[in-house]
Amino acid sequence: MKRIGVLTSGGDAPGMNACIRAAVRTGLAGGVEVVGVRRGYAGLIEGETMPLDRTAIRNTIHLGGTILETSRSPEFQTREGRAKAAETVQQAELDGLLLIGGDGTFHGGSILAEEWGVALIGVPASIDNDVYGTDYCIGFDTAANCALNAIDRIRDTARSHDRLFFVEVMGRESGYLALESGIAGGAEELIIPEESIALAKIAARLEEGLAIGKKSAIVVVAEGDRPGRSFEIAESLREYLEFESRVVVLGHLQRGGRLRYVTACSAASSVLRPLRHSSKAGAGAWPER
Amino acid sequence: MKRIGVLTSGGDAPGMNACIRAAVRTGLAGGVEVVGVRRGYAGLIEGETMPLDRTAIRNTIHLGGTILETSRSPEFQTREGRAKAAETVQQAELDGLLLIGGDGTFHGGSILAEEWGVALIGVPASIDNDVYGTDYCIGFDTAANCALNAIDRIRDTARSHDRLFFVEVMGRESGYLALESGIAGGAEELIIPEESIALAKIAARLEEGLAIGKKSAIVVVAEGDRPGRSFEIAESLREYLEFESRVVVLGHLQRGGRLRYVTACSAASSVLRPLRHSSKAGAGAWPER
Amino acid sequence: MKRIGVLTSGGDAPGMNACIRAAVRTGLAGGVEVVGVRRGYAGLIEGETMPLDRTAIRNTIHLGGTILETSRSPEFQTREGRAKAAETVQQAELDGLLLIGGDGTFHGGSILAEEWGVALIGVPASIDNDVYGTDYCIGFDTAANCALNAIDRIRDTARSHDRLFFVEVMGRESGYLALESGIAGGAEELIIPEESIALAKIAARLEEGLAIGKKSAIVVVAEGDRPGRSFEIAESLREYLEFESRVVVLGHLQRGGRLRYVTACSAASSVLRPLRHSSKAGAGAWPER
Amino acid sequence: MKRIGVLTSGGDAPGMNACIRAAVRTGLAGGVEVVGVRRGYAGLIEGETMPLDRTAIRNTIHLGGTILETSRSPEFQTREGRAKAAETVQQAELDGLLLIGGDGTFHGGSILAEEWGVALIGVPASIDNDVYGTDYCIGFDTAANCALNAIDRIRDTARSHDRLFFVEVMGRESGYLALESGIAGGAEELIIPEESIALAKIAARLEEGLAIGKKSAIVVVAEGDRPGRSFEIAESLREYLEFESRVVVLGHLQRGGRLRYVTACSAASSVLRPLRHSSKAGAGAWPER
Repeated sequence: MKRIGVLTSGGDAPGMNACIRAAVRTGLAGGVEVVGVRRGYAGLIEGETMPLDRTAIRNTIHLGGTILETSRSPEFQTREGRAKAAETVQQAELDGLLLIGGDGTFHGGSILAEEWGVALIGVPASIDNDVYGTDYCIGFDTAANCALNAIDRIRDTARSHDRLFFVEVMGRESGYLALESGIAGGAEELIIPEESIALAKIAARLEEGLAIGKKSAIVVVAEGDRPGRSFEIAESLREYLEFESRVVVLGHLQRGGRLRYVTACSAASSVLRPLRHSSKAGAGAWPER
Repeated sequence: MKRIGVLTSGGDAPGMNACIRAAVRTGLAGGVEVVGVRRGYAGLIEGETMPLDRTAIRNTIHLGGTILETSRSPEFQTREGRAKAAETVQQAELDGLLLIGGDGTFHGGSILAEEWGVALIGVPASIDNDVYGTDYCIGFDTAANCALNAIDRIRDTARSHDRLFFVEVMGRESGYLALESGIAGGAEELIIPEESIALAKIAARLEEGLAIGKKSAIVVVAEGDRPGRSFEIAESLREYLEFESRVVVLGHLQRGGRLRYVTACSAASSVLRPLRHSSKAGAGAWPER
Repeated sequence: MKRIGVLTSGGDAPGMNACIRAAVRTGLAGGVEVVGVRRGYAGLIEGETMPLDRTAIRNTIHLGGTILETSRSPEFQTREGRAKAAETVQQAELDGLLLIGGDGTFHGGSILAEEWGVALIGVPASIDNDVYGTDYCIGFDTAANCALNAIDRIRDTARSHDRLFFVEVMGRESGYLALESGIAGGAEELIIPEESIALAKIAARLEEGLAIGKKSAIVVVAEGDRPGRSFEIAESLREYLEFESRVVVLGHLQRGGRLRYVTACSAASSVLRPLRHSSKAGAGAWPER
Repeated sequence: MKRIGVLTSGGDAPGMNACIRAAVRTGLAGGVEVVGVRRGYAGLIEGETMPLDRTAIRNTIHLGGTILETSRSPEFQTREGRAKAAETVQQAELDGLLLIGGDGTFHGGSILAEEWGVALIGVPASIDNDVYGTDYCIGFDTAANCALNAIDRIRDTARSHDRLFFVEVMGRESGYLALESGIAGGAEELIIPEESIALAKIAARLEEGLAIGKKSAIVVVAEGDRPGRSFEIAESLREYLEFESRVVVLGHLQRGGRLRYVTACSAASSVLRPLRHSSKAGAGAWPER
């Protein structure tokens, strides 16, 4: 193994750049050339590669987003699209691909591997933390701390008013981020995609809290498939509970930021260590083509 | 002048507690007793007072919100309501009131002063920064830094995608917060209550930016009278500009927080210094009843 | 099991209050009374207990430090001291103790358990993250993010000057915090208690970096047994390397703060779940006296 | 006026990049070419210039430090050095210089102007906030908020221990930063260069506080001419007051960071507006050569 490609795909997660950097440095140390593929699978299909050397990754470790950019590629979901992608792998003489992304990224990648025998390693990076078989994805810690920080700031002001606060966090199909930040922040209620919403029940529980002396409450809402839905929920809840409410929608605040999953680099290094060995010994965790 | 009341009214602003604390300490140093009035004018009408001594203000300097709580009081807008308020002033033997709040607070207070001869001093505290005759209100710096911080975080991730970002900040009738954070954060466009929205024009300018190589843009929106309106604006803009967009609504994040207008205390001290002198000399800036 | 005591001991860690709160709420839900012991083992010896109900823990989840306070107790290291502590346990009718702390806390506790048969459960909480058998202690994530944030801020300014920066983080006998924040922050060098310092070697490596174009470097230093030692190291290094240097000593910044180990509460809840069962069934993970 | 140079000099301050960006954009709008001079006066002497166009300033608004780098130049303090600097101005065909810096920068600049008739405008940028005739220098707000934030974090943990905390902030000859952050943070004591240190007196006042129930105290120390001096002060104070103490040295944390003086850009724009006019009308605030 002499040369690999690295790409970031799906929603960007803080720490992706740290992971790219770790890949390049591990490659440098192990004599493996690392090539960047721009804009995820879309760029792989179009053959958009760029060299990644020491200079390219300088001063990127703390940057949110991803220097390789990312995208969602409908074309990659077609057999034709993947054929073009495999062609890029061959023409760029890549012995394998390092995929940095979440569930969808790996799913797409595994089809590519099956159809065209492309060697792959995936590093889980997703603020949804919804990759099976890993405790923490790169980016989740930062996103959770961002959400938690917001809850804490709001708690400060909540006590000054008699009010209901909705904090909308990310999570299309996964309520993990809402769950963890909500529990850690002591939110009164959670609304997550995994459970259907029972406004009457939520209102009843909130009223109970008010009855025993609470003067304000925080509801953490996973955005689901409709960012901004908290405004509608707040409106609907008013039928059951007469209480002024306010909404915060964190959105991409959770993706940016300089804090990032603290162990992003060490995680990446561990994942990549086999690569280094395989490049010497010709064998290892990295599947041979 | 032996005894004054202090109240916080209107929207809470970070730094209000620091200001209350400064009032109490200045009072202690000058031999003036300071009494807290809870829940703004509503509490003044109901006679809800509480003693404010060294213990009451301990460890409050860094707290967001206000330990005296705040409210909006429709009753105070009636002559009857203000009569009750004046009664509280008399019964609690307050020689004057220190009002911590914004434009509306001072407007209401000035009527009370006119009608009932209540002696008043106002300390401007408003994240809208819309009090005439003062450069910076308590709380504005914190809110502006909060908004700016959000813009910076989003810029990080903006470059990873080709996207339009809307950051909705506070400001019902005033676009000051949007203006200052938008300029300081280098936002591409501003939407503020002082100007009518011309989506076609905004779209044209954004397209110009894309034409010269920008891959993403940030639009700062003052919430106006409809928090969450950015979602609608984003939707409407899609008619003019085909570009994926994302929305962040900062809401009460801007009110909470431990950072606060750095000079809150010194500001408050300066305002209150005359009080101290008047209590000694029987005269000063504080208008005598 | 009807009644337990909870105490925090050793250095405080962010998240301790969240953990106390989780203990109290789990107790309330499971019919176990929770009593607070103030000032760690010192308070246990002196019999300083306080009731912990729903009110006591309200609005504490996000506070740094510990509402129970903490201390280091030399007396507890004597047999006599521990005898007094056991007496408190008996007189306060505690069926067991929940210890929130680090290595030293558990070591001391285990002697108490052996000598006097006191039933114990320990929740690891230490920014040093040096408790054997656990991946992450409560407080470590916050401390690591604090250190990392500092490194990132300094990197910003580092590029403006040709300079060496020393960032001193906590860690008396453990370099874990320095290691994780240093790697995640891309520090050039680490100085940790587990390794002896070889200034000549460090200087040589830094010079190498300068030779290939770096204009500044960051060295993360664990404070070891002499907080402020970075100033001496910076001074000594000047013999080998002519380069202006600057020092930051984070100290207790790493302990305070509102961010905290995100999963503090869930962690605590899991630990405490057996307690709830045992209180019903009369058996479980909690060792019976 | 067709072409000007811009340089940053002295200690870097957050917001310098925002100011450079504002200068370039104002220049672009007014038909004035803006040339960057690297490394302050040192680079001016050596003739190190670089073009500053729209691309050069992209994505710099939120970066700490300065993209032009800065330095302290002993050579500029000699008549010879300044002669070389004036030569660069002439050879690069600069009609004037925009100086972004503090007191020392302007002092040096004014000699250059006198001796060689170089046209100058200075934008105050200094975290020390010690430029005469301006309320707030660029960078001061960020530095003050950084220091204040540190004080707040420490206060959190201070209450868990009986302890004295020293927070060392920047300020060689000026205690302004210590003063403002100390007052706003409610510090118990301040040690600033403008006053000689009276440890016995400080100890007496701290003891008084303890006597009335305080369990911890925060002392803000301006670093003066010996960064790290807080460790010595803490040591010396122990003779008067038996109390465990801890030290935090903020150092360059105060210079970095993304937050910055919110009005940096607007400030810069106002300063530069005359420039725009003068380029049209051939006259204005900018002194003609």
